[in-house]
Amino acid sequence: MKAKAREIADSPLEWLDGTGEYSDIILSSRVRLARNLKGHAFPWRAGKEELESCAEKVGSIIRSEDFLRSFRLFEIDALEPLAKGVLIEKHLISPALAKGGPGRGAAVDSRGIVSIMVNEEDHIRIQAILGGMRLHEASRIARQVDGPLEALDYAFDSRCGYLTSCPTNVGTGLRASVMIHLPALTHLGRMGKLAFGCGKVGLTVRGLFGEGSDSPGALYQVSNQVTLGQTEDELVEKVSSAALGLVKQEQAARGKILSGKGIDLEDKVWRAWALLGFSRVMEAREALELLSLVRMGSGMGILPYVRVGTMNALLLDTQKAHIQARATGELSVEDLAAKRSAILREALASGEKGS
Amino acid sequence: MKAKAREIADSPLEWLDGTGEYSDIILSSRVRLARNLKGHAFPWRAGKEELESCAEKVGSIIRSEDFLRSFRLFEIDALEPLAKGVLIEKHLISPALAKGGPGRGAAVDSRGIVSIMVNEEDHIRIQAILGGMRLHEASRIARQVDGPLEALDYAFDSRCGYLTSCPTNVGTGLRASVMIHLPALTHLGRMGKLAFGCGKVGLTVRGLFGEGSDSPGALYQVSNQVTLGQTEDELVEKVSSAALGLVKQEQAARGKILSGKGIDLEDKVWRAWALLGFSRVMEAREALELLSLVRMGSGMGILPYVRVGTMNALLLDTQKAHIQARATGELSVEDLAAKRSAILREALASGEKGS
Repeated sequence: MKAKAREIADSPLEWLDGTGEYSDIILSSRVRLARNLKGHAFPWRAGKEELESCAEKVGSIIRSEDFLRSFRLFEIDALEPLAKGVLIEKHLISPALAKGGPGRGAAVDSRGIVSIMVNEEDHIRIQAILGGMRLHEASRIARQVDGPLEALDYAFDSRCGYLTSCPTNVGTGLRASVMIHLPALTHLGRMGKLAFGCGKVGLTVRGLFGEGSDSPGALYQVSNQVTLGQTEDELVEKVSSAALGLVKQEQAARGKILSGKGIDLEDKVWRAWALLGFSRVMEAREALELLSLVRMGSGMGILPYVRVGTMNALLLDTQKAHIQARATGELSVEDLAAKRSAILREALASGEKGS
Repeated sequence: MKAKAREIADSPLEWLDGTGEYSDIILSSRVRLARNLKGHAFPWRAGKEELESCAEKVGSIIRSEDFLRSFRLFEIDALEPLAKGVLIEKHLISPALAKGGPGRGAAVDSRGIVSIMVNEEDHIRIQAILGGMRLHEASRIARQVDGPLEALDYAFDSRCGYLTSCPTNVGTGLRASVMIHLPALTHLGRMGKLAFGCGKVGLTVRGLFGEGSDSPGALYQVSNQVTLGQTEDELVEKVSSAALGLVKQEQAARGKILSGKGIDLEDKVWRAWALLGFSRVMEAREALELLSLVRMGSGMGILPYVRVGTMNALLLDTQKAHIQARATGELSVEDLAAKRSAILREALASGEKGS
């Protein structure tokens, strides 16, 4: 059982490599498609047999289609809780799907780019995640996966488009989002206003951890609010250009902060660097905040260069399920904080040179 | 003018070397003798001429006596404020003396062990400071300096002993004190009780910075309350043995903390080490607190070894007047904090190895 969680934790998640454009600021680009099977009740009101029947239909396509055959299939109820935790931390399944039940499943490709959730809010949710600013490519990949599944006869209305369990997803069923790191804009208190501006053009800016306009670690998700009334490409382009605008504003804000009280910023990022490199116990929230400062400081050339891929990986590797999955025994709360600290020290490799 | 403050800042202060016994915990041992000249009003009620006459008498002995001739004489009113600030930070003169006025002066030996204040609260105050647990030796040195000055005909009563401006100093006029570092006892909340216990046997335990029973940096001064009714040697022995008792209790407390939640302590001292080694701006109070943790961590073998002398020197070198005295221009508050940080980084030499 344990081996499984660890194996999932260790399996690739391609966006972490940090190779896409603007990957220092835009961590990932994600496109999600919501699809349902014609003639079947939506999962929330479907019974056991119907859910299992839908799962079987989706599974049979995945198992037979050349392009999808390499995907790994998970039956949620067959997973130990730790394995589900790891999948959630990787954003390959949602906490809602992890609750399990009849016909609940997921399929993940070997590179950790595509995941298909079965019988979550909709019968099928396809998502593709890539590193950096690559929404158009993510959209192409998601639609490529959608192709063979379409053989299942989707619930589709010629006027409305794809029918979904929640009205906000009716239409293209597409949600495009980027995970973006905006520490300077957050520091200058600009996020409230920017989020408001995005709202007026049909985009949502949400803290990645929590719903406020200021987010721990200054990580935000920018996405389209509605999926109706515009084409897939228009929606993707809208989110892309808004995200690029935020990148430019973040860069300008960093320049502004540096030219002002530069030493206070330097102090802040060096202190973050120091604490990550030398502490012996660290909570997840603190790690997130410090990594955010190090990401910015490294990007601004204040700190020693840290690979974007290293910082991305640490966002996952310091989370609870990932740490536990790689440990040999059951970790106490204290063990967990100590292990997290050790992972950070080792990865940033600044520690203990004095000893 | 500037050169003078710098020269005073750079002149030796022997106790900083940290060579005495228990010098990791007992920073310094100090003995002070209060003396007054017969037939002269105490300084607080003496006029200009009388103060100058007393100063002249003391000065003539210092200038003529073989043993004292090498002492450097300072006329307080002739010193620039920065030079006075440096002398105060070195505890060679008191803030009260630094206010200046007629006949106010000081004499300091070339090794920074002995200082003689003239016309402070008493006509003459002789102090000798040594590193580590060396009160008996400090007492011998103070009395050795006292010898030739006694030719001035001290105000002395055969029943009471030496007469002094403040009744608490009447008798031997001797105050013995140690500066002691008790972070583990402070951490365990034991200082209030210990201070109370010391009070019952005629000793005072005071925070070195502030009057509370918990002191910033966990630095305390232990001294005798009264100088009457016991011999010099008895007073010195009493303070010595109390200080040694505190050393043993501190050592036991450190062991206790380590055997309990050791990793939290390790974390705390490593974080202090990290911040001292990497920050870019630091206030005096934070530096004091972090140095306290590093002193303890180094003493306990948790951190890389730091020379006691290095840590002692940093207590002075990071203070305002010392930093300004060694700077080339007038430092702003921000400059001061940045310079303090740079001094700490350089001295602890853990910094920037990653860059």
